[in-house]
Amino acid sequence: MKQRKLRMGIIGGGITGFIGAIHIRSAIMENMIDLVCGCFSSKPEVSIESGRRWYLPDNRIYSSYHEMFEKEMQLPEGERMDFVAIVTPNHLHFEPAMMALERGMHVVLDKPMTFSLEEAKLLKVKVEETGLVLALTHVYSGYPAVKEMKSRIANGDIGKLRRVYVEYPQGWLSERIELQSGNNAGWRTNRAYSGKAGSMGDIGTHAWHLCEYVTGLKVTELCAELNSFVPGREIDDDGTAMMRMENGVKALLSASQIAIGEANSFNIRVYGEKGGFRWKQMNPNELYVLTSDKEQIQHIGNNTNLGQMASWNTRTPAGHPEGFLEAFANIYRNFAHTVTTKMNGEEPTAEMLDFPNVLDGVRGMQFIETVVKSGWSDNEKWTSWVD
Amino acid sequence: MKQRKLRMGIIGGGITGFIGAIHIRSAIMENMIDLVCGCFSSKPEVSIESGRRWYLPDNRIYSSYHEMFEKEMQLPEGERMDFVAIVTPNHLHFEPAMMALERGMHVVLDKPMTFSLEEAKLLKVKVEETGLVLALTHVYSGYPAVKEMKSRIANGDIGKLRRVYVEYPQGWLSERIELQSGNNAGWRTNRAYSGKAGSMGDIGTHAWHLCEYVTGLKVTELCAELNSFVPGREIDDDGTAMMRMENGVKALLSASQIAIGEANSFNIRVYGEKGGFRWKQMNPNELYVLTSDKEQIQHIGNNTNLGQMASWNTRTPAGHPEGFLEAFANIYRNFAHTVTTKMNGEEPTAEMLDFPNVLDGVRGMQFIETVVKSGWSDNEKWTSWVD
Amino acid sequence: MKQRKLRMGIIGGGITGFIGAIHIRSAIMENMIDLVCGCFSSKPEVSIESGRRWYLPDNRIYSSYHEMFEKEMQLPEGERMDFVAIVTPNHLHFEPAMMALERGMHVVLDKPMTFSLEEAKLLKVKVEETGLVLALTHVYSGYPAVKEMKSRIANGDIGKLRRVYVEYPQGWLSERIELQSGNNAGWRTNRAYSGKAGSMGDIGTHAWHLCEYVTGLKVTELCAELNSFVPGREIDDDGTAMMRMENGVKALLSASQIAIGEANSFNIRVYGEKGGFRWKQMNPNELYVLTSDKEQIQHIGNNTNLGQMASWNTRTPAGHPEGFLEAFANIYRNFAHTVTTKMNGEEPTAEMLDFPNVLDGVRGMQFIETVVKSGWSDNEKWTSWVD
Amino acid sequence: MKQRKLRMGIIGGGITGFIGAIHIRSAIMENMIDLVCGCFSSKPEVSIESGRRWYLPDNRIYSSYHEMFEKEMQLPEGERMDFVAIVTPNHLHFEPAMMALERGMHVVLDKPMTFSLEEAKLLKVKVEETGLVLALTHVYSGYPAVKEMKSRIANGDIGKLRRVYVEYPQGWLSERIELQSGNNAGWRTNRAYSGKAGSMGDIGTHAWHLCEYVTGLKVTELCAELNSFVPGREIDDDGTAMMRMENGVKALLSASQIAIGEANSFNIRVYGEKGGFRWKQMNPNELYVLTSDKEQIQHIGNNTNLGQMASWNTRTPAGHPEGFLEAFANIYRNFAHTVTTKMNGEEPTAEMLDFPNVLDGVRGMQFIETVVKSGWSDNEKWTSWVD
Repeated sequence: MKQRKLRMGIIGGGITGFIGAIHIRSAIMENMIDLVCGCFSSKPEVSIESGRRWYLPDNRIYSSYHEMFEKEMQLPEGERMDFVAIVTPNHLHFEPAMMALERGMHVVLDKPMTFSLEEAKLLKVKVEETGLVLALTHVYSGYPAVKEMKSRIANGDIGKLRRVYVEYPQGWLSERIELQSGNNAGWRTNRAYSGKAGSMGDIGTHAWHLCEYVTGLKVTELCAELNSFVPGREIDDDGTAMMRMENGVKALLSASQIAIGEANSFNIRVYGEKGGFRWKQMNPNELYVLTSDKEQIQHIGNNTNLGQMASWNTRTPAGHPEGFLEAFANIYRNFAHTVTTKMNGEEPTAEMLDFPNVLDGVRGMQFIETVVKSGWSDNEKWTSWVD
Repeated sequence: MKQRKLRMGIIGGGITGFIGAIHIRSAIMENMIDLVCGCFSSKPEVSIESGRRWYLPDNRIYSSYHEMFEKEMQLPEGERMDFVAIVTPNHLHFEPAMMALERGMHVVLDKPMTFSLEEAKLLKVKVEETGLVLALTHVYSGYPAVKEMKSRIANGDIGKLRRVYVEYPQGWLSERIELQSGNNAGWRTNRAYSGKAGSMGDIGTHAWHLCEYVTGLKVTELCAELNSFVPGREIDDDGTAMMRMENGVKALLSASQIAIGEANSFNIRVYGEKGGFRWKQMNPNELYVLTSDKEQIQHIGNNTNLGQMASWNTRTPAGHPEGFLEAFANIYRNFAHTVTTKMNGEEPTAEMLDFPNVLDGVRGMQFIETVVKSGWSDNEKWTSWVD
Repeated sequence: MKQRKLRMGIIGGGITGFIGAIHIRSAIMENMIDLVCGCFSSKPEVSIESGRRWYLPDNRIYSSYHEMFEKEMQLPEGERMDFVAIVTPNHLHFEPAMMALERGMHVVLDKPMTFSLEEAKLLKVKVEETGLVLALTHVYSGYPAVKEMKSRIANGDIGKLRRVYVEYPQGWLSERIELQSGNNAGWRTNRAYSGKAGSMGDIGTHAWHLCEYVTGLKVTELCAELNSFVPGREIDDDGTAMMRMENGVKALLSASQIAIGEANSFNIRVYGEKGGFRWKQMNPNELYVLTSDKEQIQHIGNNTNLGQMASWNTRTPAGHPEGFLEAFANIYRNFAHTVTTKMNGEEPTAEMLDFPNVLDGVRGMQFIETVVKSGWSDNEKWTSWVD
Repeated sequence: MKQRKLRMGIIGGGITGFIGAIHIRSAIMENMIDLVCGCFSSKPEVSIESGRRWYLPDNRIYSSYHEMFEKEMQLPEGERMDFVAIVTPNHLHFEPAMMALERGMHVVLDKPMTFSLEEAKLLKVKVEETGLVLALTHVYSGYPAVKEMKSRIANGDIGKLRRVYVEYPQGWLSERIELQSGNNAGWRTNRAYSGKAGSMGDIGTHAWHLCEYVTGLKVTELCAELNSFVPGREIDDDGTAMMRMENGVKALLSASQIAIGEANSFNIRVYGEKGGFRWKQMNPNELYVLTSDKEQIQHIGNNTNLGQMASWNTRTPAGHPEGFLEAFANIYRNFAHTVTTKMNGEEPTAEMLDFPNVLDGVRGMQFIETVVKSGWSDNEKWTSWVD
């Protein structure tokens, strides 16, 4: 049975923002996916211009996703999109995702998965019912250095885990730029579009996810403090959480969007009984490997001594830096392998299945519930994970 | 007049190496180019397997480029490849490039452009005769930080230039691994495939090119010493050159493939009367901007204060690292814009034309001639640029 | 009135450890202080050998500090020690410090100041009664980069403060090395010698102190979790605290001695409305200065544009690194200036008085009380500062 | 036989500069040396003020070194200075050094050792005649990381050496600041005080020395280019040299004082058949250890796995940075050990003798002769070492 290229549609991601182009480049880079249609914006002229920039024919460019689903379903099976990538603000994740699943289409979703935990649970049920594939773009788990860290931890290289520090400082919301137009701050700082959390939903979920992904352990309770430093802002723009994980592991999470001067300085450090790791997203091809008497830089590259999971997600020799787009592309590629393998009636391998899915999405929404519950209350010290 | 996606063929780049996949991903990432055919290897089974990995139909997979050119020319104009990417060893650059140009096809070539300076000059004549476009993948000039440096220098930000240091240390040829199979060292260390120079052709040309690209000045004479440190190696695996450039600028170039433990630590530093720059390829999104009393890190991203040339070649916000593939993709994208603009009878803009071309290719071969002439002789101190 | 060199005695610091040599070198480096006597150990042979290593005459080398005080007091005023440096474990700080103060001698004390908060308060009373000078070696506040940060914050350079991160990871207690002899872990992990806190007393107090020193603000309440990761250890070897400071500033503190592979990676980051700072102790001569659109490296050196407080504490031009000993020496030097200025009946300047004193010592012990109270209890979320 | 503290006099180093304070602090830090007299300046009021800053009695403060030698010789042997540190401009090294040696005093000299090679050779003869000790402050060889590198190379850790890169970029002479007063540029850029070389004498000699010190090999010939970039400057402010060393090792040296924005970015990289090292002076406590498949950071500290030579010169545990003053102090301390051991009629150990001496001084002047001869001539490619 032969694999074929998958056909992708996109909702959101018009040329007035940058995230659409990120998704598309990442999706098509491996030549496993063709972009065939898109609803880039509800403004027809923006959607048309966006679609033409990607060489789509005008009849596959839509300005309503309802129309897109309707028209695509009228196309022969060999032409219509196989899956849809949804890159809209949080409040517009659930409906199009459900519409896709109900029509037999697979889904790629930006994080956090939904606006509310309830929506997330409904999506999960639908995914399980349909057997379709849903990928969530917790992009940072797509870096090969992160996968190498995860593998070595699972392999016992650093012994029993003890302590994790995960930090996500950004500075772009240090002023109330949401009052201006032409930036991405508007919906992110608006409870009606973003949901209960601001920074914790936007970047805190990445930090939480990396923490669970790398350690293979779940958070069981946490003690958080959230802040809205910028006057007038209605949801958090900063927060910290002490987290208790399974097996007695302790994690300290911080996320801030008022750490002025920081671009995207996401980083994680993990310490076990026998060794540790440090990794920084802004220099992602260096994994620092620590033991009691050594600090070693493991360069990432397909000519180095990486494990299977990292190698599978690596494209260049050491010293030829891979970046954010390749991490993103790893999610799309593994998603595509999983979809096509399933289409062929075969079982995807562990490498193929290595992308964030609907279960991560549900836990992400639970993280938001938990951290918001704890973070704005001074009553209880520890808040149990909200199921 | 409407642009269309370009159709790309490839010669070389089979799945036994990694360079083909680099070219293809970089080419298709912007959705401006489709891979339509390839002669990945002279071994039919390798070529077929390679082509299928990229979802090519078997009838567009060849194992001889003569056959490829013949068969493609028999296809309707709207189907045949528009351009060919040649990613073979140096001794196999000239013939397929000439065949392409003679058939009206544009060309993307790996550096150094040819086996000999004579071939380079013939190619230049042919390109000028045909008006076709030839791009040379001096990939490092594709990084936005490099373009920003070039623009600021041209803009006079650091005043009159004085001194350049450019270094390209690698360690992968520290042992005589060319005696083993299964690596890329074989042809690179063999005069019959690589040409007169080893390390100076493979990486020294990148260093020389960056030096001229960034400064906008030409080397006029140089004083070099080449070495073959690994016993039995017939061409240089290391070398240094003091270079005199136009306007009294002095540059110091070093390139080594026996700098054991170095992955691909290409870097450049430029100093003028009023300021300077430092840039390292392995952490390519940070440009260090120096003045007499300040050291500043300019992060690269499309939300930062970059000039037009760098912005045009940037895909992500600061803190979301772009890498080697994106630098490569910038060459393909600018090449594609130039080709399609010309197809439409229009003039490409300066941004579109910002990729290494056949003139860079000729100068690169002249650099090899000059550095080899100087580097192995103890007679003259300074050797004039070989035209 | 003319200044003279001060005469220093030392208690503790024998050649079997390293801390004595650190104190002595730091004290004498400016030629303002002579070491004249010492009780380096209660073992006479160790004390003698240690004293001779510093060229002390045998009659000024003691093996009991009671004897030292007695004998020194019998010496003419122009010969006896002016001050004593106490570098013993925590439980042996209070008695010799009180004995010194009661005899009119000034004191330099290692941190934390005492074994208990009660002792600290008694010391404070005695210092105030006597008018003598007590310096506490929170050495990290002695670095010029730290002082520059403090000055610029006080000067409003980064606007109203919002958020501080301060981290102190070490790995040397990852195993239960206190069961072996010949290291400094024994008393530090023993409640009978160290006091209520382990890592929080040893390094957490440094982190807390830097946080208050740099911001000029006090912690008002905190929420902590302490851990003893290494089985059998009776006091904390790791901990984190969310801290609320005056003016609504939030700080996140972590300290760990089980962060395996970390040497002494103390670092602080401060963010305000208009800018921020980053500083790392292991590369102490670079201060990162952040604004919304710039990241600048301020090199430390007496030829750079430093403020008065940093300049006063800088010895070399930029690029000639100063280190731990010079930071330590700044405390001794400022202490010495203060003492001699007071001896002359004059008022010390603000620069002279810039060293941690008995008030910092009391607050340090209060920090330990507060963090221990919060850190081992799951009841209350926020614990008010223990006065 | 018992050691005693040595008595030091100083010539030069008044409070208008910074170098005197560097020497004094470094000398006295180990409590092995007392400053007893000084001729800090030929201006009496400057000399007096400088001496008082170091608590010297007025009768041991001189404003002529002739007077200083005369008066000190009239003092009893147990009071007069044992050695003199000479920290004047180059043209004032030879005479006081000879005067000291003729009077039985040991000498510490700033580099380069003398104004001319002839003077250097005369000093060497005098040192050999008298059996006195002369130390030359090539301070960078005093860093423990450098000593560790040297030991491991000697030990064969990286196999047969192949290639060295040594760079010394500074930017402080980017403008013609020698026309202003109040800086150290005046004599350094004046042939009458500095000698034949500018940057090559001031910092190029440090680079050359480190190259020979670390490798244990001598330069045999070189090919250099010197430049005076700043208009009106009469000696070099920039230069590069390709150097051939014993055993076929190739070294590339660059030194510049017009590398604007660089503070003191001295660094060295050494590559052998089996491994390599990188070290940067501005972050001196990290030694990068390279092998074909690993990059490791060796932290420097007396709790780490350092060899004997580095350990002997280390004062703090890893993570507690030592700096420039401690490197300087290592030269003084080893010099002092050597002097006192010889005074006691014993043989100094290899550790004690590990400081630059008169032979290094002669070779340093030969380096200047050779690099100046080659650097300003376009005739010969290679210039043999000038003996």
